[in-house]
Amino acid sequence: MIITETIHLAASYSATRNKTVSLCGPLREEDTVVQPIVDVSPPKWHLGHSTWFFENFILSRFKKDYKHFNKSWNYIFNSYYESQGERILRTNRGNLTRPSFSEIITYRKYVDEQMQELLVDEAIALKIQNWVILGLQHEMQHQELLVTDIKYILGNNPLFPIYKEQDIEFGAMPNTTGEDFLEIGEGVYEIGFKGDAFHYDNETGYHKAFLHAYRIMDRLITNAEFLKFIEAGGYEQYQFWLSEGWEWVKKHRVKAPLYWFKMDGCWHNYTLSGFQKVDLSAPVTHVSFFEADAFARWKEMRLPTEFEWETACKLFSPEIPQNANLLETEKYSPIPRTKNDFQFYGEVWEWTNSSYLPYPYYKQDKGALGEYNGKFMINQMVLKGGSCATPYPQIRASYRNFFQTDKQWQFSGIRLAQYL
Amino acid sequence: MIITETIHLAASYSATRNKTVSLCGPLREEDTVVQPIVDVSPPKWHLGHSTWFFENFILSRFKKDYKHFNKSWNYIFNSYYESQGERILRTNRGNLTRPSFSEIITYRKYVDEQMQELLVDEAIALKIQNWVILGLQHEMQHQELLVTDIKYILGNNPLFPIYKEQDIEFGAMPNTTGEDFLEIGEGVYEIGFKGDAFHYDNETGYHKAFLHAYRIMDRLITNAEFLKFIEAGGYEQYQFWLSEGWEWVKKHRVKAPLYWFKMDGCWHNYTLSGFQKVDLSAPVTHVSFFEADAFARWKEMRLPTEFEWETACKLFSPEIPQNANLLETEKYSPIPRTKNDFQFYGEVWEWTNSSYLPYPYYKQDKGALGEYNGKFMINQMVLKGGSCATPYPQIRASYRNFFQTDKQWQFSGIRLAQYL
Amino acid sequence: MIITETIHLAASYSATRNKTVSLCGPLREEDTVVQPIVDVSPPKWHLGHSTWFFENFILSRFKKDYKHFNKSWNYIFNSYYESQGERILRTNRGNLTRPSFSEIITYRKYVDEQMQELLVDEAIALKIQNWVILGLQHEMQHQELLVTDIKYILGNNPLFPIYKEQDIEFGAMPNTTGEDFLEIGEGVYEIGFKGDAFHYDNETGYHKAFLHAYRIMDRLITNAEFLKFIEAGGYEQYQFWLSEGWEWVKKHRVKAPLYWFKMDGCWHNYTLSGFQKVDLSAPVTHVSFFEADAFARWKEMRLPTEFEWETACKLFSPEIPQNANLLETEKYSPIPRTKNDFQFYGEVWEWTNSSYLPYPYYKQDKGALGEYNGKFMINQMVLKGGSCATPYPQIRASYRNFFQTDKQWQFSGIRLAQYL
Amino acid sequence: MIITETIHLAASYSATRNKTVSLCGPLREEDTVVQPIVDVSPPKWHLGHSTWFFENFILSRFKKDYKHFNKSWNYIFNSYYESQGERILRTNRGNLTRPSFSEIITYRKYVDEQMQELLVDEAIALKIQNWVILGLQHEMQHQELLVTDIKYILGNNPLFPIYKEQDIEFGAMPNTTGEDFLEIGEGVYEIGFKGDAFHYDNETGYHKAFLHAYRIMDRLITNAEFLKFIEAGGYEQYQFWLSEGWEWVKKHRVKAPLYWFKMDGCWHNYTLSGFQKVDLSAPVTHVSFFEADAFARWKEMRLPTEFEWETACKLFSPEIPQNANLLETEKYSPIPRTKNDFQFYGEVWEWTNSSYLPYPYYKQDKGALGEYNGKFMINQMVLKGGSCATPYPQIRASYRNFFQTDKQWQFSGIRLAQYL
Repeated sequence: MIITETIHLAASYSATRNKTVSLCGPLREEDTVVQPIVDVSPPKWHLGHSTWFFENFILSRFKKDYKHFNKSWNYIFNSYYESQGERILRTNRGNLTRPSFSEIITYRKYVDEQMQELLVDEAIALKIQNWVILGLQHEMQHQELLVTDIKYILGNNPLFPIYKEQDIEFGAMPNTTGEDFLEIGEGVYEIGFKGDAFHYDNETGYHKAFLHAYRIMDRLITNAEFLKFIEAGGYEQYQFWLSEGWEWVKKHRVKAPLYWFKMDGCWHNYTLSGFQKVDLSAPVTHVSFFEADAFARWKEMRLPTEFEWETACKLFSPEIPQNANLLETEKYSPIPRTKNDFQFYGEVWEWTNSSYLPYPYYKQDKGALGEYNGKFMINQMVLKGGSCATPYPQIRASYRNFFQTDKQWQFSGIRLAQYL
Repeated sequence: MIITETIHLAASYSATRNKTVSLCGPLREEDTVVQPIVDVSPPKWHLGHSTWFFENFILSRFKKDYKHFNKSWNYIFNSYYESQGERILRTNRGNLTRPSFSEIITYRKYVDEQMQELLVDEAIALKIQNWVILGLQHEMQHQELLVTDIKYILGNNPLFPIYKEQDIEFGAMPNTTGEDFLEIGEGVYEIGFKGDAFHYDNETGYHKAFLHAYRIMDRLITNAEFLKFIEAGGYEQYQFWLSEGWEWVKKHRVKAPLYWFKMDGCWHNYTLSGFQKVDLSAPVTHVSFFEADAFARWKEMRLPTEFEWETACKLFSPEIPQNANLLETEKYSPIPRTKNDFQFYGEVWEWTNSSYLPYPYYKQDKGALGEYNGKFMINQMVLKGGSCATPYPQIRASYRNFFQTDKQWQFSGIRLAQYL
Repeated sequence: MIITETIHLAASYSATRNKTVSLCGPLREEDTVVQPIVDVSPPKWHLGHSTWFFENFILSRFKKDYKHFNKSWNYIFNSYYESQGERILRTNRGNLTRPSFSEIITYRKYVDEQMQELLVDEAIALKIQNWVILGLQHEMQHQELLVTDIKYILGNNPLFPIYKEQDIEFGAMPNTTGEDFLEIGEGVYEIGFKGDAFHYDNETGYHKAFLHAYRIMDRLITNAEFLKFIEAGGYEQYQFWLSEGWEWVKKHRVKAPLYWFKMDGCWHNYTLSGFQKVDLSAPVTHVSFFEADAFARWKEMRLPTEFEWETACKLFSPEIPQNANLLETEKYSPIPRTKNDFQFYGEVWEWTNSSYLPYPYYKQDKGALGEYNGKFMINQMVLKGGSCATPYPQIRASYRNFFQTDKQWQFSGIRLAQYL
Repeated sequence: MIITETIHLAASYSATRNKTVSLCGPLREEDTVVQPIVDVSPPKWHLGHSTWFFENFILSRFKKDYKHFNKSWNYIFNSYYESQGERILRTNRGNLTRPSFSEIITYRKYVDEQMQELLVDEAIALKIQNWVILGLQHEMQHQELLVTDIKYILGNNPLFPIYKEQDIEFGAMPNTTGEDFLEIGEGVYEIGFKGDAFHYDNETGYHKAFLHAYRIMDRLITNAEFLKFIEAGGYEQYQFWLSEGWEWVKKHRVKAPLYWFKMDGCWHNYTLSGFQKVDLSAPVTHVSFFEADAFARWKEMRLPTEFEWETACKLFSPEIPQNANLLETEKYSPIPRTKNDFQFYGEVWEWTNSSYLPYPYYKQDKGALGEYNGKFMINQMVLKGGSCATPYPQIRASYRNFFQTDKQWQFSGIRLAQYL
């Protein structure tokens, strides 16, 4: 990615960093502390960790005589970089009441000022621009996690506090009555990221894959459709489940997607706008891979592979422009949908039946960044597309998200496929 | 307990309730949320639960047309009263970010105003005074827990935040060089609470116990003495440990009391005034029953029984006056020590070798209060005396505290005994 | 214990050792291997361990040039004697298929021959007699465990294999329709073992205890009476349960004593003679302390203390003669019951409401035997009386058995008491 | 698979079934009972389960008036077929001492006689031949598991019993000094089983895959090579490990392959022929996927995908003839190796970097057989090639074995690959 004007980088930096803080606007200090499950991180930890990233990887290396805000915080805000010193056990994050939210905001301001000083120097800005962009992309990943983690924290409180009155989750789906499919013929297709815009190491290795002819739905599965699965006893019949999924259902007594509650005989769910009746026309979300897979079997179809999904997306969906500057981070989904476009982006992450494994020619970086993606390439499944919580610059056909098969706390949904 | 003047009850109510809030003064909102171990409750939960006690057991029963502050909070602030409706799982308390600290303070004010309205009516005050006193005693138990739980929350943060600059923990012990003992002859002694002042159901059943002749130390074991046990390899030799204690030591790799850390070859510990070198002349504290028992074996002595402790205390220690009004709750330990008195109170809780079992004639109350003590009378050991965190009105010879044998988070220490 | 004739010791040795092997007579080799729960030991381990006791504590010390059968077996057959070298983790016992049953039988024969050689020498026999008697008493404790462990192994097999056709469990209780009580007045009573016959260290420390006046049932609670508790919803009402017991009931979904199964609307249970309808007139057994305690609360009574039980037993029950020779080990319960005697022995172990703690003056032995009892004196409750599986020489008023409060696999039952 | 002569089927049946029993020849009854880890099944369970397969799927359906040997055994010997009725919890298999080994041998004889009666009738034999062949293939899978499970049972006994004196594990590797690679060019290759011989449903879906040009070792990694990884501190450096693998190493303190023990400074391992010094020239085995992957990273290479492995195997390795009759089951590996052949079979199972997922067009069978493979297609990795414990008829290029990434108890080893 080539940035010709320093001004853009500095402005993108500000916009992105401010966006993160503004996501915490509706919270109380107390909301920013807890970690109810291991997947969720405390919001104030997200704020500190994304700041630590700039301090640790940029300021302490590139800023002359940089004085750390507080060296003992390194131990607290490192996430999983084994190369960057000892870190707190992940499950203890939720017990760290200090540094407090306001101290972390002060930390952010301090680092932001130091960063802006760096960025006004064009020579330095050029030298560090790749690190800055990585830091901002990283920040955006944590913006998304902030939204999902806040939802978990509030949605598991018996008082069901509202995050924002206006619905920031996705709206109704078009044309949900029929099952329309897009058809793609047999052939060798190209997979992965190509170009010089920002992308992660796990998307590199632009390569070829042979696909057998298939068809894939032109929309997502809705709550109405998933409800039929529930009502047909889908959660009580082992036939539809992977063996491990069936154990999971029985052990956790799963009966519906996360945040669904049956009240007075009617299904409700918690959304960021509060507790409400399930919107039947919205895409189903907060389902695990196990649930997505079981639903597909019940429909006598299957989940697409990540290669099938990416190929269909590249063929049928309008491209999301990847701007050179990141000012667009203020705009979030939903991406405007035109009548003639098929939608593969920005509603829910879509489970694929592909394991998260390295692409051909993938090389893990030798330094700290080598820990970014490569070491997680096992026992997870790939998700594609991006959700309502995903910042624009993270939305592209080649982006590979990945989670374990039992995770429900992300905005994760279902699209089906079949061989022809 | 007979209260002749309503004014005292109202004043005691104010004093006690205010004291609780003032204990949270040095905290940030964030500190009031978490529950790092199951024994610890979030400070804001203590504030809410002790308020719920007055609302649930007094206002909703005795105040005409009482309007609940928020009925849905019952589920959150009930502790373990099975009779009082469904309650949140204890291990989830630390994930409840709402109601927030400030909402709970508002709740306290609301309930306090309602309570004061009740208390000005002498007829009603007379009728409810036993409930009010129980509520205030209950509040004081939670004041003590607040202090110990705050210590745990701050003392397990790698930043070791200071709670209060001036040492609120105990000071140096007198006469720690020798081992002086008090001797008590064989005979039948009287045990339990006698009189009409406030006391708990587990102290009732004033009864007789036969004691064989014994001697008991006239002071507590100091850090210096416990350090010798550590240095003699006490934690590495199974001979000194109960079988279950030895498993506990190995499983948790226990090497010292809680909050002790070896730094640069020197033992430090976390106190409410911060991280410091271990004060050798202070009584050892934050030891589990297993550690107290192992130390006693290493010294070729034993822990006293609760009956021996109580008898010695009644014979040799000055009585703590149990005032009719509770204004004294503002005064905390240490209790002034005169040269001629032996000290059995208000430094650390002292482990005894008595299991927490019912006294003869003990009858569990039929109602909600029956759940107060009786149902915990198994697999716990009795502690006597009261600590630096214990409010005055909880300190008396017959008070029975009780914890499981592996607990260290209370201010718990050691006094030794022997048969003659 | 004084043995005047060597012949008796040798004969007792043979009788006791043979009895152990004969208890395994009805088993297949496969039955002798497994350890379905941590409390149960594999039958072949019992056979090896009790033999190791003689080899390790007697032969290797007192027999000149004694050649170990197989030195590497020490690691396998040590139980919990930390002083006797590393031992296999207890939970792994059930995975050790070798040494095989027949190899262990050969081991027993080898050790028995070596022991008989020792015992014919009067001088040596005199010197080692206390060790031999301890070994035989230890062997008898394992005979009892063999019976209870075999019952668990067979009783948890869906095929419910029969151990012995004739009922070796207890028969019907006399006079079960009424609730007759024995009354004992207030006073200081003497507790513990007195005399020079064999006894364990935990019974020593003959001492005094003050008892308040009480009454105690002259018989055990029957299955019929316990069934009423079940039918009254006793397992579904928290009021009757200790807090920890209530957690246990909910976690394990306990609905009846161990080995009880409801089939076609009717309660059956597994006995050593097979699967059958519950015998309503037999004493209830295989209940945990939690169940015994809950039953007592439901009846608005309580369990006796161990001191109350022992005092009543000494006052009202015929003494079991403790013969100088142990040939009586072949005779097992039931002890003949005469019309005029009250029965406190040999039906089921009776839960008391006393914690297992040291008696006054108790001193733990310094050597390996010090590990026999003392280190288990925590978080267990005392049981008195002895069951149908208990060898005669283990049955006496002062014998203290002890188990954790959730254990059901022993023959454990209920007798109730009240204060007058 | 077409069988023209009934005689072959009957003879194959006998040969295969006898082989299974003969594998248990060196065992004691006790060895056949236990289940030390959840992956291992008791040998006598394997004997019963493989017999139940014939009874349940063939005799009870196709034999007129077939009388079950014992209907209650169904519950015990069903493995994971949810459709075939309730089954015992897998972790409880190791506590079932009955039916005994000899009873199961009787069961085998009974079923074998009944099967032979069926097989002499040509009309029926023709009708059931596919089921019989599946049953025999299933039996051979359990033969392999028998060997690996026996190794685990004996190899975790501190006495390290010998299974067979002569080494039945693999011998030395040829040419282990250099690192020779086979090169394969970019292109679309054909994957999966083709033909009418027996194969499993997970191999069907003969399809195309695009491979980028790569090279693959012409032999397996040896113990000598793996030892260098150990000595270079491979187990102590997070850089070489997947994140989940690193947790596994730390949690279980893994320091070497399973069955390796350092004694007197020298590495030994347990083999079926006993405890011995590690044979440096033999292929490394009993490594988990995590270890195989870490080793590959340390060598700066990677594991091949299952598609790369299969393509190389088909191009360079001699085919194993898949005989129409199964009499060959008596012959086990090693497969004779000629100078000019490259060896891809029958030494150790080779971990690939492919997840176990369905092939294109894969359809899960609707009946009980649908549970055979499809429901395990998640969170496991594919292994290719077959080990010294694998019967001939299971060895073919398209055979897909699969295990979780932490499993070590199979004979599993390493072959490396690279992109060109």
